[in-house]
Amino acid sequence: MDKIRAGLVGITGYTGMELARLLASHPSMKLTMGCSRSEAGRRLGEFYPFLEGLPGSDLVISVYSPKAVAENCDIAFLAVPHGKAMVMARELLEEGVRVVDLSADFRLHDAATYEAWYKVAHTEKHLLPEAVFGLPEFYAAEIARAKLVANPGCYPTSAILGLAPALKKGLISLEDIVIDSKSGTSGAGRKAVTTSLYCEVTDSFKAYGLAKHRHTPEIEQELSILAGQPVTVSFNPHLVPMNRGILSTIYTKLAADMSLDEVWQIYTDFYKVCPFVRVVPKGALPETRYVRGSLFCDMGLVVDPRTKRLIIVSVIDNICRGASGQALANANIMCGLPMAEGLNQAPLLP
Amino acid sequence: MDKIRAGLVGITGYTGMELARLLASHPSMKLTMGCSRSEAGRRLGEFYPFLEGLPGSDLVISVYSPKAVAENCDIAFLAVPHGKAMVMARELLEEGVRVVDLSADFRLHDAATYEAWYKVAHTEKHLLPEAVFGLPEFYAAEIARAKLVANPGCYPTSAILGLAPALKKGLISLEDIVIDSKSGTSGAGRKAVTTSLYCEVTDSFKAYGLAKHRHTPEIEQELSILAGQPVTVSFNPHLVPMNRGILSTIYTKLAADMSLDEVWQIYTDFYKVCPFVRVVPKGALPETRYVRGSLFCDMGLVVDPRTKRLIIVSVIDNICRGASGQALANANIMCGLPMAEGLNQAPLLP
Amino acid sequence: MDKIRAGLVGITGYTGMELARLLASHPSMKLTMGCSRSEAGRRLGEFYPFLEGLPGSDLVISVYSPKAVAENCDIAFLAVPHGKAMVMARELLEEGVRVVDLSADFRLHDAATYEAWYKVAHTEKHLLPEAVFGLPEFYAAEIARAKLVANPGCYPTSAILGLAPALKKGLISLEDIVIDSKSGTSGAGRKAVTTSLYCEVTDSFKAYGLAKHRHTPEIEQELSILAGQPVTVSFNPHLVPMNRGILSTIYTKLAADMSLDEVWQIYTDFYKVCPFVRVVPKGALPETRYVRGSLFCDMGLVVDPRTKRLIIVSVIDNICRGASGQALANANIMCGLPMAEGLNQAPLLP
Amino acid sequence: MDKIRAGLVGITGYTGMELARLLASHPSMKLTMGCSRSEAGRRLGEFYPFLEGLPGSDLVISVYSPKAVAENCDIAFLAVPHGKAMVMARELLEEGVRVVDLSADFRLHDAATYEAWYKVAHTEKHLLPEAVFGLPEFYAAEIARAKLVANPGCYPTSAILGLAPALKKGLISLEDIVIDSKSGTSGAGRKAVTTSLYCEVTDSFKAYGLAKHRHTPEIEQELSILAGQPVTVSFNPHLVPMNRGILSTIYTKLAADMSLDEVWQIYTDFYKVCPFVRVVPKGALPETRYVRGSLFCDMGLVVDPRTKRLIIVSVIDNICRGASGQALANANIMCGLPMAEGLNQAPLLP
Repeated sequence: MDKIRAGLVGITGYTGMELARLLASHPSMKLTMGCSRSEAGRRLGEFYPFLEGLPGSDLVISVYSPKAVAENCDIAFLAVPHGKAMVMARELLEEGVRVVDLSADFRLHDAATYEAWYKVAHTEKHLLPEAVFGLPEFYAAEIARAKLVANPGCYPTSAILGLAPALKKGLISLEDIVIDSKSGTSGAGRKAVTTSLYCEVTDSFKAYGLAKHRHTPEIEQELSILAGQPVTVSFNPHLVPMNRGILSTIYTKLAADMSLDEVWQIYTDFYKVCPFVRVVPKGALPETRYVRGSLFCDMGLVVDPRTKRLIIVSVIDNICRGASGQALANANIMCGLPMAEGLNQAPLLP
Repeated sequence: MDKIRAGLVGITGYTGMELARLLASHPSMKLTMGCSRSEAGRRLGEFYPFLEGLPGSDLVISVYSPKAVAENCDIAFLAVPHGKAMVMARELLEEGVRVVDLSADFRLHDAATYEAWYKVAHTEKHLLPEAVFGLPEFYAAEIARAKLVANPGCYPTSAILGLAPALKKGLISLEDIVIDSKSGTSGAGRKAVTTSLYCEVTDSFKAYGLAKHRHTPEIEQELSILAGQPVTVSFNPHLVPMNRGILSTIYTKLAADMSLDEVWQIYTDFYKVCPFVRVVPKGALPETRYVRGSLFCDMGLVVDPRTKRLIIVSVIDNICRGASGQALANANIMCGLPMAEGLNQAPLLP
Repeated sequence: MDKIRAGLVGITGYTGMELARLLASHPSMKLTMGCSRSEAGRRLGEFYPFLEGLPGSDLVISVYSPKAVAENCDIAFLAVPHGKAMVMARELLEEGVRVVDLSADFRLHDAATYEAWYKVAHTEKHLLPEAVFGLPEFYAAEIARAKLVANPGCYPTSAILGLAPALKKGLISLEDIVIDSKSGTSGAGRKAVTTSLYCEVTDSFKAYGLAKHRHTPEIEQELSILAGQPVTVSFNPHLVPMNRGILSTIYTKLAADMSLDEVWQIYTDFYKVCPFVRVVPKGALPETRYVRGSLFCDMGLVVDPRTKRLIIVSVIDNICRGASGQALANANIMCGLPMAEGLNQAPLLP
Repeated sequence: MDKIRAGLVGITGYTGMELARLLASHPSMKLTMGCSRSEAGRRLGEFYPFLEGLPGSDLVISVYSPKAVAENCDIAFLAVPHGKAMVMARELLEEGVRVVDLSADFRLHDAATYEAWYKVAHTEKHLLPEAVFGLPEFYAAEIARAKLVANPGCYPTSAILGLAPALKKGLISLEDIVIDSKSGTSGAGRKAVTTSLYCEVTDSFKAYGLAKHRHTPEIEQELSILAGQPVTVSFNPHLVPMNRGILSTIYTKLAADMSLDEVWQIYTDFYKVCPFVRVVPKGALPETRYVRGSLFCDMGLVVDPRTKRLIIVSVIDNICRGASGQALANANIMCGLPMAEGLNQAPLLP
């Protein structure tokens, strides 16, 4: 069978880099087009020496054009900034190319909320109704039929997966949910800015964007759907001196007295059919290294009788599960492939 | 003037190492005795090559004996595990040596609470009434008169300093205080265990001891004193792949509507006379690197109108401010020296 | 077709961990037995949470017994210390199990040299003649027929591959070869020792074992074979605060005036048929991250007319190419599989 | 006594940052002027939050003007790029301000060599004869009288100190000296470039500038003076994922058979009067962390009878000893203060 032809618009950032990595060893999909204005004309293997000699490394990077993508690709990944992605998505859909958009442009169903948090006008509002939020555990059927998938943000992926059973099963109060998230530095992107320099990041730890990070409405949208009523959260990100990984510590209040055994069983049952969500044993806690380079979301549970809280620790790889790996899983589903195709490699340790 | 003679019992851990470092450049105090069973007989400069050639490096490490300490020292630091420290403290006090105990043995006023959390019998309960909790910003007068100072834990130092103005001034609800703390790996100690190996820690992030860390009662004791009524908190630590530093993100609920301007002014006024507490400008947030190697506690404030929360970010160096530097500040006060003597070096960046 | 059944003796170290990782996604080989005295009785997925849910994670760790290995495995990997491996290899060969030994026990053809450098008696000298040095680029035919493959050391792999074309083609003087190697900390093993703790390794750099590291005779043995006459080298290792990777900077003297163009062409031709050796473009230099988690050896060349030197920079992943990945490549060849089976994943970046 | 007034031109880079740090706790010198075009108008403590509250933090950053520096400063440090520094040095000398130049502009006595390696015209050749190479161990008398001190480069400092006794005492052949140096990432400067990003540097290792780094002629100049005849070296730098530190492994050939005891004694005697050079015990090797934040140069010696080589391992902190700390030592000497004033802090560990 011929391989599915994938296009990648935006290759210079970490999500583009990760998609190029994953596609290099995908058994049924191949990179047939890679677009970047700044790097056009270079071979992919020259630009990314780690990919040299692997499938796709001889591809010559080109300037984006919707027509060229349509000619060469069955599906396209948009790994470009929000604002830019919405226009490209529209152009590609008009050309008949299915799109997985890694930006935030189609994640929020409500354009006004998008515009309030992102301070950008949404020029393609008509596409919002057909965009599917690409969390495969919850929306696989819709993704399979979708022409446009809005790939979830990294923090939301960890938070939503962590809270879903608790909200769906009514375990917790909808008040007072605090999500304290910690992300590896690849989450800050690959732009050359002083604050992302090695010597500014290593051997230090900081919070940023407290109470006003743009992933907040995305988290609230999905939690509200799960809870069946509006949910407001306090979402607060931090930067960790490491490459990859997000760990979200989620503080909730139990709706009623409940033992760890009971909560753990509910979580385990909830995710029984989801091979990439691993509820770790009672008493254990997840670590970001255990999911490095993979699609896994590992989850640990703590019930604190002193404060009547359920604490959920949810861990993902921010650029694989939190971006490009999830995008590829979505593309797999859209193309009729098994969700896990090309994503079955074990996490890299140490 | 002759230098004050300091003894250090326990030199092989990171707190002992840090005290040796600080004493090597202290203008009015010198290390006259360093005790370690395992390293006895070696020169300090041989054991710690980084101290070679500096004052104190020619000291020969010896086995602890209360009499020898009494002969050679005006004051003694105990950098040994809890349980062991209580006996030594009693012995040294009997010999007339003033003691700064870096362990947890005398931090909790209530022996039953100590025994419940530490699972160890307290054999020196009679000393608890005279032990002073060594947080110089709040107890300087008592420290000056004390024979036995219980040096605060690292996490409690960051949490108590962060919450003190809010509790003292009644800004927040006493319910629902969540302290999400992140510590550098020196906090895990210098014992040779697999989980502390470089390749197990680097490029990863994890939580541990959620809802049951032993620093919880210490935090609650001091917050209750500040609030004038019992305070229960949810305290939850995490491990960061970095050497030094603690950042505590503290989630509280405002007792009444309040602007950031108002909260910031109250905090700034509260700490106006405290040179080592720095409330960072409105809109800014502290980073652990900015306090590396110093006694500073940096504090950032966020008011979130969406959730009516006050979020406090409190940052210290866990082994300097959170242990040995604070111990030295306490010793300075006990000996009639300025609190900051020998502690005025700028943080090391990068 | 049934999968080839592989046994792994020694699972707790980093080489055992890496083999478990690689076998979890191998399409034609599976882990049927994992041996460790200290961890016997635990499920592999419990001991290694990162492997949970992947093929092999339900395996119960057992105590090594040659008979049990013979019953359950077609081939066995020995990831145990030198000295212990030689006996196990003999036992397994007697049981008819083919062996890839990751220790140093069968790498040196001369038992006296082994005993001089390793300070251990070689009790299985009779097996030395049949042991094949497992460098697939040079010994693939012998490996295919071998019952016992001595998997090369990590440093030797980088040094030998780096020097082979220069020696084989007579480009350099045999005098004055200096190999300055830098290794990631996984090379120090997973033993719980203070010197391998995170806080002792991070943010620092050191040399160790200068002029007396045990990999020296292994390097000299293979270089002498390539040169056709005895070669003595100065080999000097260093420790880098990173997980994986070895970079060897190799200083040689050109036998005659030669341009970079000429040397580069000879290297490129030499390795044309070797998909896992990548000679980087003229003017470029390799980095350890570009080979992370892979079998690649990347090589950069510099000709310095001022000093008439050829400097070769050779880069591998020390636990994949330098140990477990190469062991798996050898096992593939021994079992009639393509060398690269299960080893085609792209390096993990960042 | 009034403090000596110091000016610092260029505060945004790591050397400027380090000078600001050191001056904040200098007992007899204070920062009275800090110049930066891009940050002019900001308070120093605002720009560098880690310095807030310390002496100098209230200084307002200004635009450089020679007249203003002359009015406000007794001495000036130039922490600006080469090419720019030479003009400023001339201007300041004309105004009567003594200058410590941290750039390379006045390090090479021969303008033609400077122009060949730096590809810049030297516009102030007339100042070269009076510029003193600021290595305090060798040129203290000249520094004391100097109006213009050329502060040595970081790599040269480690290499020259490491080789000086061997060359001065004729221990080694002048042929075949190879200097393999490894530097922390602060050495790459604080410019916002992709290659210096955290995720590009961490967990990786690379060589750069092999055989053509600009510090080569500076090393050769000083080694030739020490040897009394021209010395050519192969100097090759590498980048380590750490903040601070340089380790140079220096490969030499012994001129005659010599034991480690003999070499070690010669080195120890040579540096007996130099408190900041520490020859580590026989059998030990230095580590960069042992000198972190200090003026120390630690040195380890290995004699290899197999290859008749003397290997010297020389370790410094690249931004303290290798730049700003050494600059401050030079300024101390120029101002009649003890060389070590303000530089006596113990290295920061861990």
